[in-house]
Amino acid sequence: MSRFWSSVVHNLSPYVPGEQPKIDGLIKLNTNENPYPPSPRALAAIAATADRLRLYPDPRATALREAIATRYGVTSDEVFVGNGSDEVLAHSFPALLKHDAPLLFPDITYSFYPVYCRLYGARYELVPLDAAMRIDLADYRRPGSAILLCNPNAPTGVALPRAAIEALVVEHPDRLVVVDEAYVDFGAESAVPLVARHDNLLVIQTLSKSRALAGLRVGFAIGQRPLIEALERVKDSFNSYPLDCFAIAGAVAAIEDDGWFDETRQRIVSSREALVRGLSALGFEVLPSLANFVFARHGGHRGADLAAKLRERGVLVRHFQKPRIEDFLRITVGTDDECGRLIELLRDMV
Amino acid sequence: MSRFWSSVVHNLSPYVPGEQPKIDGLIKLNTNENPYPPSPRALAAIAATADRLRLYPDPRATALREAIATRYGVTSDEVFVGNGSDEVLAHSFPALLKHDAPLLFPDITYSFYPVYCRLYGARYELVPLDAAMRIDLADYRRPGSAILLCNPNAPTGVALPRAAIEALVVEHPDRLVVVDEAYVDFGAESAVPLVARHDNLLVIQTLSKSRALAGLRVGFAIGQRPLIEALERVKDSFNSYPLDCFAIAGAVAAIEDDGWFDETRQRIVSSREALVRGLSALGFEVLPSLANFVFARHGGHRGADLAAKLRERGVLVRHFQKPRIEDFLRITVGTDDECGRLIELLRDMV
Repeated sequence: MSRFWSSVVHNLSPYVPGEQPKIDGLIKLNTNENPYPPSPRALAAIAATADRLRLYPDPRATALREAIATRYGVTSDEVFVGNGSDEVLAHSFPALLKHDAPLLFPDITYSFYPVYCRLYGARYELVPLDAAMRIDLADYRRPGSAILLCNPNAPTGVALPRAAIEALVVEHPDRLVVVDEAYVDFGAESAVPLVARHDNLLVIQTLSKSRALAGLRVGFAIGQRPLIEALERVKDSFNSYPLDCFAIAGAVAAIEDDGWFDETRQRIVSSREALVRGLSALGFEVLPSLANFVFARHGGHRGADLAAKLRERGVLVRHFQKPRIEDFLRITVGTDDECGRLIELLRDMV
Repeated sequence: MSRFWSSVVHNLSPYVPGEQPKIDGLIKLNTNENPYPPSPRALAAIAATADRLRLYPDPRATALREAIATRYGVTSDEVFVGNGSDEVLAHSFPALLKHDAPLLFPDITYSFYPVYCRLYGARYELVPLDAAMRIDLADYRRPGSAILLCNPNAPTGVALPRAAIEALVVEHPDRLVVVDEAYVDFGAESAVPLVARHDNLLVIQTLSKSRALAGLRVGFAIGQRPLIEALERVKDSFNSYPLDCFAIAGAVAAIEDDGWFDETRQRIVSSREALVRGLSALGFEVLPSLANFVFARHGGHRGADLAAKLRERGVLVRHFQKPRIEDFLRITVGTDDECGRLIELLRDMV
């Protein structure tokens, strides 16, 4: 603490990301990274960009917004890009989510949401998941301003169908609904096709998971023009050039390589199904996941204990010491070999 | 505008960066980029990093903070890094510069400062430069909270010596003094050596100019631990991984390559001296610059007209349509050939 701190700093509770240890041979199933490398076309595009390093990147990232627009059937001015979807989410608070009435989001969801609220002084109210850890949209019939949902939800992996998102958007025409689709590409339905007919829907995605570019930091939002304009105004009051030249070039190539994208995500979906079968056979309760991770608990063992024992044996999973979910493990879907090794270790523990 | 906008969005006046046109053969002297490429060691480090792209980068950027600490004679926990110095500056507002009393900074300086103030709702007061466009530290003896100076100042290029910064810090022990040293490596004195003995000094630098890495987006702050902790708390409430894996790897190598750094900045200093002689010979008034740009006006010609004519002839310089400086051109120091071409064109115009 220091007499020079601004008042907001005292009240912050910074988000704690999963650890990124540099230990050889570790099986890393703790931060929802893709077990496969990114598109070789992304790597080639990055290598071809090194000679532009002395120059500022395009502050509008036009090439990337155009590639995303083409891929998702919108126009480039309906696309906002940022330094990871965390930055896109962050800007959405001062741009669109800070109002007199509270922002609503689930009690169990991406734990960065309340952190943003404290940074920007945005009021919020937690809406509990139901007993099966699902979002019940009827629970959002309460006073509030905007609604923020992660779909599939994290850390549960449980997804709402597109029709449910549309029903929510239609039911609350005066509320902005922001859908964080970080994990949507592993079997869930994206709300992007709804954007054209609903002015109160903003969809946020990332290239970190399904496009295996966590190390490059690229995320984006798709929405009607006034929503995107609000994000642009905040971004241009924060950092003119949030995406470096490699991020723009690599992301364009990754977005354009549908073949690589489809092949790798299908492999992850298959591995997830095998992982769920393996965990279930060991007596784990596994929530129905459409993400690249599963959320599972075992009646006979505490989550913290299992996570600690796995870590001793060289496998990292994520455990949250939080009410309602303290007995769960969030396990990223790795390769079949990695998942097999996890199952083998758990078999000796439970 | 939209009914979904948060109230702050309406009042923003986004910063407008210098244009980044994609026109072949253009001589680009408008955004203070380095005319020489970055260290070949940075390029090699970047190429060697591509295989880590699927993984999240180190959220603390430890290797980079250590490299900067070693280079500048501080400890790594006295170093904060960000996605360009624009992001470091941005975080300093909610962390350290928003108080009940106004933040003080010059009327003519980096025009992003008042933009940040509006985004974060920070009060500020402009302190006019003197008639010779210099910062007069006596003018900061007025009610205020913190003081923010760009040194050398932009867009003037005029620098204060280190002893003046120390006198300011000593005179105002209860005010934080933030010194933005984006342009310090071209002949000015850095305040970094003062950090050890003053708890109210924060120094911000960038790798965009003197290390020719504008396309990579890396900036940093050096200060005593409580100041850095405030920035970390804000950063960890905003984006866990602001620096991608290439930014960390490339910046480490660039910081370590003192030979390349010294050679290229010396070339730029020599070119600046020649450029100043050339402009003076044409009748321009040139402010005494210790930056990689010069700020110059010609009694017989309007700044906007000269900038427009230069643009028609393929040379971009920066012109600000603002009171007191509307007749000036801010000209980045390019190679000797580029500066020579500029002088040749101006000779036909004035």
